[in-house]
Amino acid sequence: MTVELIPLTGIPEIGEGDDVAAAVLAAAGAAGVAWQDGDVLVVTHKVVSKAEGRVVPVTDDAGYRRLAEEEAVAVVRRRGDLVIAQTRHGFICANAGVDRSNAVPGTAVLLPLDPDRSAHRIRMRILQDTGVDVPVIISDTFGRPWRRGLTDVAIGISGMAAVLDLKGTTDATGRELHVTEIAVADEIAAAADLVMGKAAAIPAAVVRGVAWPAGSGRATDLVRPAAEDLFR
Amino acid sequence: MTVELIPLTGIPEIGEGDDVAAAVLAAAGAAGVAWQDGDVLVVTHKVVSKAEGRVVPVTDDAGYRRLAEEEAVAVVRRRGDLVIAQTRHGFICANAGVDRSNAVPGTAVLLPLDPDRSAHRIRMRILQDTGVDVPVIISDTFGRPWRRGLTDVAIGISGMAAVLDLKGTTDATGRELHVTEIAVADEIAAAADLVMGKAAAIPAAVVRGVAWPAGSGRATDLVRPAAEDLFR
Repeated sequence: MTVELIPLTGIPEIGEGDDVAAAVLAAAGAAGVAWQDGDVLVVTHKVVSKAEGRVVPVTDDAGYRRLAEEEAVAVVRRRGDLVIAQTRHGFICANAGVDRSNAVPGTAVLLPLDPDRSAHRIRMRILQDTGVDVPVIISDTFGRPWRRGLTDVAIGISGMAAVLDLKGTTDATGRELHVTEIAVADEIAAAADLVMGKAAAIPAAVVRGVAWPAGSGRATDLVRPAAEDLFR
Repeated sequence: MTVELIPLTGIPEIGEGDDVAAAVLAAAGAAGVAWQDGDVLVVTHKVVSKAEGRVVPVTDDAGYRRLAEEEAVAVVRRRGDLVIAQTRHGFICANAGVDRSNAVPGTAVLLPLDPDRSAHRIRMRILQDTGVDVPVIISDTFGRPWRRGLTDVAIGISGMAAVLDLKGTTDATGRELHVTEIAVADEIAAAADLVMGKAAAIPAAVVRGVAWPAGSGRATDLVRPAAEDLFR
């Protein structure tokens, strides 16, 4: 089945106290997007953080570094200005998720305190308004070891499982699959970034037609437990 | 603009010497997919490797481990049966890309010797047959440090840049973007996996409507140079 990635354009600049779900619903309405069972909504964390007041003043590089240290619970690697750190949520990323791009000059945007809860709130509001239960993914842009370039990943989830577990299923030859866990929520976040873009300031997209795994996932399901992780 | 992810179903089991491009063209024809400018074709490496004869016998776990060591040019980490290794191409992945899933029992599939070249051949054939120049991405399924679950990435590219470089561009607030390189080819591979799936044995998909970066990229553009890499 064909999957569609539908950008939600026309969402205005979001500030503290603004209603992200209402802005998403209005943009979907204006674009003629009728919510369907099976849709997934992806929202970049930047607008969620701004709505939740997770914006702090920062004037210089030193202040920016200090912020990243404050947001970190553990530093995994450090080289020059780059700090790879674990956030309180468990995510490992550059500068503990503190970001100055798409922020008002003189400010930086922090990660939401509880992105799963932010996703849940948006999902409940869409359900209430439209009667359709749409899983919601909050995304952020992370780097990776070994590979150049960044990709979007899921840092908040509500209404679906984060990971598709293929354990016990077989491939086309009848052999049990060795690859047992697919990070579907991350693949959906990456796919949505193809229509959102960094410069275009499109903060949300509807992903239509994915056979996403059912369940009550949390974004921390995508964090590899430290004991299994060979790289921290 | 809405992006479509279109699975190419009905591609038969591929063996050594089979013509992957012809199989893709036939499947697209049967599905009524008329190639358009802007389309990207994603093909899982498994069928490319099989067509190129990159299949070897393996009878037991010890033989499988030996194969992975032979395919590796450097071992990055090892724990129990798991070997994270660098391939001759430069990719860092589990078992140097040697894979037994979706392989004939008693065999394992290796990575193509030159996946960019494999992508180029398929692209040229589609151009010849249809008159449309469609970038081609060869994908594989890789794990990541820190995050659970696997995602598809690009291991071969022809006809587009691998990475979108935003250096010098500004965000919606006029601030220069700190996130300067987006791994678009990896995001396209991950998106395509949403319609291909591991168990369904759909080895190819058309990604329609992405504003992919122009250029003559190679998959090794996605490999972080060792000197910049804090995790090997």
